[in-house]
Amino acid sequence: LLAEAHRDRVSVVLVRPRNPLNSGAAARAMANFGFAHLAVVAPYGPHWREARSAVGAPQLLQDARESATLSEAVGDCTLVAGTGTLDHRRPGQRAVKLPELTPIIAGEIARGGRIALVFGPEKHGLTRDDLSICHLLVEIPTHPGQPSMNLGQAVAVCLYELACGDGTVTAPASQDIPMPSRGEDDSAASSGELDRLAGVIEETMVASGYSPPAMRRANRLYLRELLRRLAFSQADARRALRLFRRILWRLGHR
Amino acid sequence: LLAEAHRDRVSVVLVRPRNPLNSGAAARAMANFGFAHLAVVAPYGPHWREARSAVGAPQLLQDARESATLSEAVGDCTLVAGTGTLDHRRPGQRAVKLPELTPIIAGEIARGGRIALVFGPEKHGLTRDDLSICHLLVEIPTHPGQPSMNLGQAVAVCLYELACGDGTVTAPASQDIPMPSRGEDDSAASSGELDRLAGVIEETMVASGYSPPAMRRANRLYLRELLRRLAFSQADARRALRLFRRILWRLGHR
Repeated sequence: LLAEAHRDRVSVVLVRPRNPLNSGAAARAMANFGFAHLAVVAPYGPHWREARSAVGAPQLLQDARESATLSEAVGDCTLVAGTGTLDHRRPGQRAVKLPELTPIIAGEIARGGRIALVFGPEKHGLTRDDLSICHLLVEIPTHPGQPSMNLGQAVAVCLYELACGDGTVTAPASQDIPMPSRGEDDSAASSGELDRLAGVIEETMVASGYSPPAMRRANRLYLRELLRRLAFSQADARRALRLFRRILWRLGHR
Repeated sequence: LLAEAHRDRVSVVLVRPRNPLNSGAAARAMANFGFAHLAVVAPYGPHWREARSAVGAPQLLQDARESATLSEAVGDCTLVAGTGTLDHRRPGQRAVKLPELTPIIAGEIARGGRIALVFGPEKHGLTRDDLSICHLLVEIPTHPGQPSMNLGQAVAVCLYELACGDGTVTAPASQDIPMPSRGEDDSAASSGELDRLAGVIEETMVASGYSPPAMRRANRLYLRELLRRLAFSQADARRALRLFRRILWRLGHR
């Protein structure tokens, strides 16, 4: 389980929540399990901050950060974990079962990182586009006959696991794709740094004629996923950014 | 974790739920984690079976058993676990933390028992009277600053722990009161059998002049709790029932 001081390094991010009662219920579960930082991406309607379902947590909901995009919401995070089923997983993206998540998060916090735990909208969950921002996909092991959980309940179950679960990695069963490790003294590139790097590489792909218009979206998603899979350190990201800026300049685009 | 076949021996019991949306949410969480038997005690209002929050579980909600009292709802169960905080715990009643519950339930199922997992109403949880029907109290380890959970979220968290948790008994910390063990080949008295025995003993207390009117309620709660704490087998319960009927007859009351 996560030490209480470490829960302060974890943000809960709700992407395009439709029903304010669910945002309130998420806030309530956060208070129940000792989490304080809520971010909401493109919420539906203006009055979600007043949801009366945030019992015991109205201030937490009032203090939630609001942003237009998921990239913006997780810009300062070094480990972005999206929740959902394997449906929209990016090729090559690591997937873990919820009971295996705690030691991964604890390790990243020990290296000085910040965590985002991301939940999709009620109807269909996170899209492929949302998941391209995530380092890994977290599956709640629900019954195949009825896999889809209520948003507030899914948040409660995940935070219960982080705050109270044993968090022992039982078996490598669902860890089909291992997480690369960085050097001990090198902190991870944040999601925002990776986005900047991805932006410059994408420009380069276009400028160099590598990426025809029909392939641009696919290449963009691939690139985001690749950069997260590689577990760039801040130094790696800075070095790569310099290289691609140089290439762009030589190509006459900057 | 509980094997899927064993989840069929577990009933979820909602006591006096106020908001039908919460009963529906409980049904949804049951479907998510492979539980099928719902019982509802004295629900508020007539239309709770139609709650649209029972996404993926409308039939489970339709098939729920309804009863007027908790005693009736758990009559066939040999282990009744009430959820809540220590506030209303009966003196001498065993309390466990949620992560410790699974092996206790699994052991009782292995001995042929049936389990009830009982949730109180939204505002105040289970009363002292409700808890006097329970063999043990299960605590969800929430934050002291905001211990009270939403009903649907509490059900989801408990069933997630039973279906997916490691269920290792970590430490005897909260097991301040041990559970007595019965002989291997002797199955537990059901909650209904204990109620019948308690009824006859109570009559005896009154008939013998042991229990003055002012003490009757306190004695009744004590008696219920005592009988559950003693872990009567069916044979024990039958023997005691015969004894007290005999005493009553001698006292001229039957």
